Amino acid sequence: MRETAYPTPVCTIDAILFRIRADKLEVALIRRPADARVYANVLALPGGFVHTDRDQTLNDTLLRNLQSKVGLSPSYIAKLEFEGNISRDPEGWSITCPYLCLVDDSAPCLEHVHWHDVSDFLRDSPSLTLPFDHQQLIQKAFQRLYHRAKYSTEPNYFFKNPFTLSELQTVYEIVLGKPLHKKNFRDRIEESMSVEETGDSKIVKRSRAKLYTHKHPLKPHFFSRVMQGAFD
Amino acid sequence: MRETAYPTPVCTIDAILFRIRADKLEVALIRRPADARVYANVLALPGGFVHTDRDQTLNDTLLRNLQSKVGLSPSYIAKLEFEGNISRDPEGWSITCPYLCLVDDSAPCLEHVHWHDVSDFLRDSPSLTLPFDHQQLIQKAFQRLYHRAKYSTEPNYFFKNPFTLSELQTVYEIVLGKPLHKKNFRDRIEESMSVEETGDSKIVKRSRAKLYTHKHPLKPHFFSRVMQGAFD
Repeated sequence: MRETAYPTPVCTIDAILFRIRADKLEVALIRRPADARVYANVLALPGGFVHTDRDQTLNDTLLRNLQSKVGLSPSYIAKLEFEGNISRDPEGWSITCPYLCLVDDSAPCLEHVHWHDVSDFLRDSPSLTLPFDHQQLIQKAFQRLYHRAKYSTEPNYFFKNPFTLSELQTVYEIVLGKPLHKKNFRDRIEESMSVEETGDSKIVKRSRAKLYTHKHPLKPHFFSRVMQGAFD
Repeated sequence: MRETAYPTPVCTIDAILFRIRADKLEVALIRRPADARVYANVLALPGGFVHTDRDQTLNDTLLRNLQSKVGLSPSYIAKLEFEGNISRDPEGWSITCPYLCLVDDSAPCLEHVHWHDVSDFLRDSPSLTLPFDHQQLIQKAFQRLYHRAKYSTEPNYFFKNPFTLSELQTVYEIVLGKPLHKKNFRDRIEESMSVEETGDSKIVKRSRAKLYTHKHPLKPHFFSRVMQGAFD
């Protein structure tokens, strides 16, 4: 290990990986190994150390850990605020570089992955207690997703092609926890130029709905006005 | 140092400290020590290692470094995106936790601090070459400030009380690099409820302008509509 003048805190990445299934926002948890230095066998966010001999960047560290521990590649990643202090790890000073990761619900993953309803962790007393500051990391990841759902097309990444605009609106409504004004939603999406018609359509509730795909490259667009609710 | 299964990258904080003086946005640089492991005697962002025996949090690390190296406490700090990779430091794997810091231009600081025009670092070939990825960190800090100036009251933190709304508008205009629509600006500030009248006023260009102060606690407000330019 490289010499430094001061002891260096332990540094890890953590993945807060969200998907939407059955109209619920879910987060991926995995069981920590039996030989973990702390919190052995406990459900926690997937994460891990930088392997300085294999990873070129922290993004590499994230993708390697997600591939080996969850068995998938996310459709979107974004850096969240770093956290570092003396108390988040019972063994002392540690820093985490947390990532918000989104994946569409059809992506296959390893069998042992536990998908937990995010809303449970937004309460003070969730049904499942997580180690470290993992509950706060989930709350921060949700807050970011929630605010970006008003300001940007970030929730588009929950979707695989093709989809109807009503299906897309539903994803935003699940994240925001309220029904959206349909015309306002479509104005924002149109302004964003983030999707385009496939030319195909499908029958939804006895009428024909156009199918859309994401325009590539899939990069979030920021709206000039925030998303408005149907009952604001 | 605590034992880990893998070599831990070196981890530092970096401060991207901005002020506005003479209608210019400036960033604080200091000369690295003569015995620095790399880039000795070179101007760079103020930063440093966590002192695990003294700092409780990374914010403590930031404030301690700013106090000792720049000689001031910022009026506002915000975490920027962490960066970690094998190439940013010539000695190998390193991670930085960078902070955007704002200070009003009347705050005294140590004599050796070099305040440099930020716009120089937004060019590909600045007049001053910075070590590590410090130029990119300044660019990212600026991008954040720039976008927040459209969406929020973050630039308010450049100000000490009291001030006129025209002076406040000027700060936003310097950050955004364009004149703002006066009524739209005042609508956004009024909506934010971030300032209040002192009851006093001063003479500006032969007319009387009301003086304002920040409402406390000084926490950024996010606008529901973005700031509009005078010539959009």
